[in-house]
Amino acid sequence: MADKIKNAIRIIPDFPKPGIQFKDITPVLSNPEAFQQAIDIFVARYKDEGITQVACIESRGFIFGAPVALALGAGMTLIRKKGKLPAETVQETYALEYGVDTLELHADALTAKDKVLVIDDLLATGGTAVAAGNLIDKLGAEVHAFAFLVELSFLEGRRKLQDNHREVFSILSY
Amino acid sequence: MADKIKNAIRIIPDFPKPGIQFKDITPVLSNPEAFQQAIDIFVARYKDEGITQVACIESRGFIFGAPVALALGAGMTLIRKKGKLPAETVQETYALEYGVDTLELHADALTAKDKVLVIDDLLATGGTAVAAGNLIDKLGAEVHAFAFLVELSFLEGRRKLQDNHREVFSILSY
Repeated sequence: MADKIKNAIRIIPDFPKPGIQFKDITPVLSNPEAFQQAIDIFVARYKDEGITQVACIESRGFIFGAPVALALGAGMTLIRKKGKLPAETVQETYALEYGVDTLELHADALTAKDKVLVIDDLLATGGTAVAAGNLIDKLGAEVHAFAFLVELSFLEGRRKLQDNHREVFSILSY
Repeated sequence: MADKIKNAIRIIPDFPKPGIQFKDITPVLSNPEAFQQAIDIFVARYKDEGITQVACIESRGFIFGAPVALALGAGMTLIRKKGKLPAETVQETYALEYGVDTLELHADALTAKDKVLVIDDLLATGGTAVAAGNLIDKLGAEVHAFAFLVELSFLEGRRKLQDNHREVFSILSY
């Protein structure tokens, strides 16, 4: 079912550093049929789940989260790098390979009534997605599932996300 | 026609620095009716214009550009900050209030056959949008129009963009 997406993804060797085979999704986006196929797969999976907000991780998560939120009739919630959101936020700091990074979510973005789908383009080690889930937890909302276009399964990020009976879904796995 | 959007925008005083009345669009996104209204306005305006690619400026431009591209049956092209795009790029450096910034576009993202709609959330001084237009020019594609959710008209960014008979459109103007 994901044939158009898979055919469109381009592998870039040694980006952003030697040894990494980067999965370039930009040819998926520039191909309307492939891009639509990705959105259709996400929407078919979550349309009857009562999702109220789609939380999108900056910045490539915005690309998939916006059309999915609209198609589900749900709101779109932004999870951004530190300093980008203008109102009061909750914050979550997480470890990177070297150093740390901080994600933020507006403190009034979600309530205990929200059932949230988290979307990003890529599941790698899972650090960013775990931090996103923790932010949503802080506001008392329910994380229903994490959904990704591409999963790098050898990095085992899925294991970090599968506690609390949360679904982890990816359209393509490498 | 843009009543739901206008009612949803939140003004944050003194962000990111004293004296600036920041137009926070996140409440537009979290409100499905307001977000859909914005997309519908863009799509109604450009659906019969033969747009082949929607060029979206990182990162809030992705939010509006993705659904508009899908609805138009056009591709989505990313214009990103330096170092984010993995393949060969063209670059454009432009002045900020303090210092400079650089935008990139994949060198194979567009061709002379493309008719491009540039989308971003905000038109302020116009520096970013001018740089985006220059990138598209470098690849020989046609910039048909620049479209924004919000225009800060007192900053007169529109003047910088209106050469070459390119349309400048904004849903809301302050």
